[in-house]
Amino acid sequence: VTATIRVALDAMGGDHAPAAMVDGARRAAEDHGVDVVLVGDPERLGDATVPVVAASQWITMDEDPAIALRSKPDASVRVAASLVADGEASAFVSAGNTGATLAAALLGIGRVSGVRRPVIAAALPTPAAHGTVLVDAGASADVQPEALVSYARMGVAYARVLGTDEPRVGLLNVGAESGKGNALTRDAEEALSEQAWFAGNVEPPAVLAGEVDVVVTDGFTGNIFLKTVEAAGGADADGPGAAVLLGVAGTVLVAHGASRGAEVAAALRTAADAARADLGERVAEVLAS
Amino acid sequence: VTATIRVALDAMGGDHAPAAMVDGARRAAEDHGVDVVLVGDPERLGDATVPVVAASQWITMDEDPAIALRSKPDASVRVAASLVADGEASAFVSAGNTGATLAAALLGIGRVSGVRRPVIAAALPTPAAHGTVLVDAGASADVQPEALVSYARMGVAYARVLGTDEPRVGLLNVGAESGKGNALTRDAEEALSEQAWFAGNVEPPAVLAGEVDVVVTDGFTGNIFLKTVEAAGGADADGPGAAVLLGVAGTVLVAHGASRGAEVAAALRTAADAARADLGERVAEVLAS
Repeated sequence: VTATIRVALDAMGGDHAPAAMVDGARRAAEDHGVDVVLVGDPERLGDATVPVVAASQWITMDEDPAIALRSKPDASVRVAASLVADGEASAFVSAGNTGATLAAALLGIGRVSGVRRPVIAAALPTPAAHGTVLVDAGASADVQPEALVSYARMGVAYARVLGTDEPRVGLLNVGAESGKGNALTRDAEEALSEQAWFAGNVEPPAVLAGEVDVVVTDGFTGNIFLKTVEAAGGADADGPGAAVLLGVAGTVLVAHGASRGAEVAAALRTAADAARADLGERVAEVLAS
Repeated sequence: VTATIRVALDAMGGDHAPAAMVDGARRAAEDHGVDVVLVGDPERLGDATVPVVAASQWITMDEDPAIALRSKPDASVRVAASLVADGEASAFVSAGNTGATLAAALLGIGRVSGVRRPVIAAALPTPAAHGTVLVDAGASADVQPEALVSYARMGVAYARVLGTDEPRVGLLNVGAESGKGNALTRDAEEALSEQAWFAGNVEPPAVLAGEVDVVVTDGFTGNIFLKTVEAAGGADADGPGAAVLLGVAGTVLVAHGASRGAEVAAALRTAADAARADLGERVAEVLAS
């Protein structure tokens, strides 16, 4: 375990990598005092102002995550995950291929006990006391109804860590009435209804009005929802810059593929805060309790 | 066929029915000169200022559409559809149970030749020359990939009627790269790729930037997307107030369940405009060509 909080950044992942990563790392270090290490091809990183850990390979946005990870042992995202696994970094951030980030985290760091499928949690800035946690924001596009119960549990744990004592969970749906939606939401609603924290179906306006602390949905719908909120509401310059991977045994953040330097710096600051708060460990504790 | 444009309004459907319907009908008549007929229980409509056609039954938001329609032959939405079928109205509008509106339209008016499953088309106010047509905005939550090709065809026909000569169609997805998304979008992308008008996968920001004239998706995702755009971007007071049902042999509009008088009046005006432009017939012509 590192004494100081150091954040590894996948320098090769993202639409504007590596330039935006080099710029974001510099800003995070200079403006927010974050201890950053860039992971990537030193020859492509130019005159980086922060330390660099070399990685000779990288994974592009349109590669198949499983195949790419197997065939590229020195991929930047794998090296970043190994830095966390080895205790040389407290967290890692990637704006690259989300599936590859998830797979690299599972492979290199492992999952929290009892969790089958990690999930991406995004913090929506709603009027709820501590905002609203969206799970799944994009980890798994095709899932079974039972997965949504597991996602909701992780969302509840995260919301508790964020300060909500009794989080209320809504199922993202096209109507608030019971039985609405598609095959997935109808079955998920039934499975969720056994939980004391389940508040029923919620439509997008109710989510944005802060009526629930956690909103659960599949990763396809959640990613469309998140990107629409961001695009329709205008980019939030003071936002967290990244979403958190819940269910892996370490602090891993997924930044937008389109991130520029400012967003990368925000993501690095969020990662440092999450690592300092022992987010991953505290979520695991709540899940185990 | 009616000589003048008369619009039938389901007075009993919607969260704020019948009061919002009575108010909306009055406003549409007084402010926009729309010839409206209210369809519902006369005793519940108070002192309506427009003509009333009696219907002794109605369908609530949480009823199963097929069962409700069978068991309620005098349901307001069925009577409204029959007015269009009989030529006593040029169009009908309902803010009630969407599934029931769709089923009543199919049962009472029938579908356009060659169309298996009608679709709800919403006009998104994007920078595209004539806005962007969203199909499916909520007709069918669970669909097969082939349905999306049919939806796209109807969307193209509608976009042509709206004035776009060569509409470009995007598939709503979580990434612009080929192969992204869930099982449905991957198969739909393959099926759509045979079409000359297909422009590939589009993410929410690209849709809102007006990069395509038509965006196609399943009715669950489309409804979540539409409601999120409206909630995140703020309600558009000058909007159309309603979405159009494509693929039925008449002009049918679906208004928001939450519509108040102003939104109902906007929907009635949109319906009158659509009927005046022979929207349904022109879409059928483009589909047949």
